[in-house]
Amino acid sequence: MEDNRQKLLQSQIHDWLLKNKDSGTRLLQKLVQADSTQANEKGAQGIVIEALHEIGLRVDIWEQDGDELVQHPYFVSPRTEFKESPNVVGVKKGTGGGRSLILNGHIDVVPAGDFEQWEHHPFSGKVVEGKLYGRGATDMKGGNVSLLLALSALQQLDIQLKGDIIFQSVIEEESGGSGTLATILRGYKADAAIIPEPTNMRIFPKQQGSMWFRIHVKGRAAHGGTRYEGVSAIEKALLVVEYINKLEKKRNERITDPLYSKVPIPIPINLGKIEGGNWPSSVPDHVKLEGRMGVSPEETMEEAKLEMESWIAKLQEVDPWFAEHPVVIEWFGARWVPGAINLEHELMNKLITNYQQIQGETPIVEASPWGTDGGLLTKVGETPTIVFGPGVTEKAHHPNEYIELEKVFEAAEIIALTAIDWCGLH
Amino acid sequence: MEDNRQKLLQSQIHDWLLKNKDSGTRLLQKLVQADSTQANEKGAQGIVIEALHEIGLRVDIWEQDGDELVQHPYFVSPRTEFKESPNVVGVKKGTGGGRSLILNGHIDVVPAGDFEQWEHHPFSGKVVEGKLYGRGATDMKGGNVSLLLALSALQQLDIQLKGDIIFQSVIEEESGGSGTLATILRGYKADAAIIPEPTNMRIFPKQQGSMWFRIHVKGRAAHGGTRYEGVSAIEKALLVVEYINKLEKKRNERITDPLYSKVPIPIPINLGKIEGGNWPSSVPDHVKLEGRMGVSPEETMEEAKLEMESWIAKLQEVDPWFAEHPVVIEWFGARWVPGAINLEHELMNKLITNYQQIQGETPIVEASPWGTDGGLLTKVGETPTIVFGPGVTEKAHHPNEYIELEKVFEAAEIIALTAIDWCGLH
Repeated sequence: MEDNRQKLLQSQIHDWLLKNKDSGTRLLQKLVQADSTQANEKGAQGIVIEALHEIGLRVDIWEQDGDELVQHPYFVSPRTEFKESPNVVGVKKGTGGGRSLILNGHIDVVPAGDFEQWEHHPFSGKVVEGKLYGRGATDMKGGNVSLLLALSALQQLDIQLKGDIIFQSVIEEESGGSGTLATILRGYKADAAIIPEPTNMRIFPKQQGSMWFRIHVKGRAAHGGTRYEGVSAIEKALLVVEYINKLEKKRNERITDPLYSKVPIPIPINLGKIEGGNWPSSVPDHVKLEGRMGVSPEETMEEAKLEMESWIAKLQEVDPWFAEHPVVIEWFGARWVPGAINLEHELMNKLITNYQQIQGETPIVEASPWGTDGGLLTKVGETPTIVFGPGVTEKAHHPNEYIELEKVFEAAEIIALTAIDWCGLH
Repeated sequence: MEDNRQKLLQSQIHDWLLKNKDSGTRLLQKLVQADSTQANEKGAQGIVIEALHEIGLRVDIWEQDGDELVQHPYFVSPRTEFKESPNVVGVKKGTGGGRSLILNGHIDVVPAGDFEQWEHHPFSGKVVEGKLYGRGATDMKGGNVSLLLALSALQQLDIQLKGDIIFQSVIEEESGGSGTLATILRGYKADAAIIPEPTNMRIFPKQQGSMWFRIHVKGRAAHGGTRYEGVSAIEKALLVVEYINKLEKKRNERITDPLYSKVPIPIPINLGKIEGGNWPSSVPDHVKLEGRMGVSPEETMEEAKLEMESWIAKLQEVDPWFAEHPVVIEWFGARWVPGAINLEHELMNKLITNYQQIQGETPIVEASPWGTDGGLLTKVGETPTIVFGPGVTEKAHHPNEYIELEKVFEAAEIIALTAIDWCGLH
C-alpha cells in the first residue's frame, strides 16, 4: 500500500488497540475462565460467537459429524461424537478480486493437571504485572484474542478489503486436529493462513509433525527371589530406550535446514510414559512405553513410521532375546501432520515487513518444534500456513501458564496490517 | 529309636499313607477348590478345622486382632482388621518329657491372575497324570496336606509322643506373616519347627529375608517437541536401575556360604514394577520403581536397609542431576524376616536321616531364595525352623500351578518319622 496511507492505517489501528486494551483483556479473561477442555468447549465458543456478532461478521456454527469426517484418512480423535462441541467460523467478506486469508485458532485446552501446582487457580484469568494467568492463556486463547482484536479494529475503522478473511475457532487441536479438518471438509479454504499458536512472536514457516506410538517389551516372569530364572522386561526396556535414542540422533543428523540451526533436537523422539510389571517381588514380563515421534516437513508420516518400525526390528542385533521376543510397536492416538510454507511466499514477506515495522527489529524465523493444525490446512486444505503468535511456548501445557498481555496487542497489530497487505485494500 | 521298632513304625506309616491316598488327594482337592486369597480364607480354614477334628486334635480357632499385634515391630499387613479370617491351631499333646515341634503352613494364596493363562480353572483342583492343578496346590496347600496326613497317621496308628506337636494353619504369609506372628503372641512356641513350603523336597536350613521398596526418580517436565528443555525421568531411571544392579552384584559377592554355591544370585534385588510419566508427548518428570530386596540370614533387615539407602545416596556421583534432585527411597508393604537354623541342629540331623531312609538318596541342602514365616518363628518365636516341602518352587505364584501328588505323600512320611524322632516315642 502507499506509504502515507499505510502510516495512517497503522496509527489508526495502533490507537484503536490502545483504546481497547481493557476490553481486549476482559475478553481474554472471560475466555480463560471458560474451561474448554475436550468436550467442554461450548461455553468458550459462546463467548467467541458473541464477539463475532459484535464485530459484525457472518457467523457459521456447527457440530461436526458424519462419515466423511470420521472416516477421513487424516481424522484423529479419541471420540467420534461431537455434540455440544461446536466449531465457529466468522467471515469478513471481501469486496472481490483479493487474496483470501484464514485466521485459525483452537479453542480447546489441555487439562489443568494438579491444581496444587498452580499459583493462581487455573481458570482464574488473573492479571499480575501485565501477565494473564490460566490454562489456555498462552495456548492459545491469547492468540485467538489477537485475531479477534485485529478483525474488530478493521471493522470498527471501516477498513474494507478485497479478499475474504475467514476467522476460525476450532475444537480438537490438542487431540489431532479434527476441528480444522471439519472446517476444510465444510469448504473453508483460502490462499494462505496464519495460526497464532504460542511462538513467542517468532515466525514459524515450518511445523514439525508428530505421531504417538506404543511399544511393548516382553520379559519372562519369575519369583523375585529367583530372578535369575526370569528375564526382566524392565532391563530389556532400557535397551529399547537407548536404541530409540540412537534413532533420534540418526534422524536429526540428517536435518540441515538452517531454520533448525538453533534447535538442539529438531525432530525429537520423546518417551513420555512407561509402565510395566505388577508386583514388587515378581520379575516383570511386560513393559509398555508410550511416546511421540517428531516428523520433519521433508518426510511423510508413512516414511517416518517405516523408519521407526524397521529400526525396532533390528533390536535383535542388540540382544538375541528380541529375536525370539520381538518388540511390538503400534501407532495410536493423536497425530499432527507436518507443514511448510515457502520461505519466499508473499505472506511471509508481508508478515516479516509488518513485524519489522511494528517491533523495530528483524523477527526470528524458525521451524516449530511441535505440530499445529497448519499441517492439515496445508496438506488437506491446500492453504499455505504460517504459525505466528504472542504466547510463551515454554508455558504451554504447564502449570502457571500465562501470556504477556502486551504481546497479544502487538500480535493483533501485526496481523491486522498483514491482512490488509495480503487481502488488499478496497 | 531302636532299629526294629523304627522299621515297624516306618512300614506302618507307609502302608497307612498308601491306604489313604484317595482321601488325602480329595482333601487337597477340596482345599485348592476353596479360594483362600487374602480376606477369603474362612472356607479353606473350615476344611482344615474339620480335618483336625477328625484326626482328634485339640483345636484353637481365633481371629487375630489387638494393639499388641498391629503395633508389633514385626507386624506387616495391608490390613489391620482380620474378621472372618481365622487362624487355626491343632495340638497333639505329648505325654511329657519330649521336645515340642511346630508344623506350620499358611492357608492364604496369591491371586490367580489372568484366568486365560491357566490351562485348567485355577480353583479346579483337577488331577492330570499324578499332578494336582490349581492356585495354592504347590504354595502351599500340598505341604499343609502332608502335615495333616502325618498327624493323621500318627493318631490313627496310635503312636504316642513325649513332646507336643503343634499344627498351625495361618493366614497372611503372602503379605508378610501376621498370621504366624499372631500364633507367637498367642503363646505358641516350640523347640523347633518345620514349614513345608515348596522346596522341591530340598531342605532349606536358611531362608532369605526380603523387604519391599519404592524408589522415586525425578525429572523435569517439558513438551516432547522441545524435549531438550526437560529432563526425562525415564532416562534417569535407567541409571538408577543399572546402579541398583551394581549393588546387587556387590552384596552377592560377599556371600560365601556353600549353601548358596548353586544359586546364581543368592540375595537378589528385584525390580518388579515401573511406572512414570502421563502423556506420550510430555517429558516425564517422575518415575516410580517398586522392588524387593533380598536379605541374607547373616544380616539384619536394618543393615540391609541402610546399605541400600547409602548406596542410593551415592547416585549423585553417577550423575550430578541426582545431587539436586535426590532419588527418594521408601520401604513399604510386605517384609519377610530372614531365618537360619544351625546346620548341626538335631532336627536337621533327624530330617536328613529320615529323608535318606525314605528316598534312598542324600537330600539337597540349600538356602531358600525367598522368605517364609520361618524368620518370624526363629527371630520372634525363638523356634529354630527348617523349610522342607513337596511343592514345585518354580510353579508357585504362576499360572498352571500344580503339585506332584506322590511328593505330598513322601513328605508326609518323612515328616511323620522326623516328628517321632524329635518329639520322642512314649
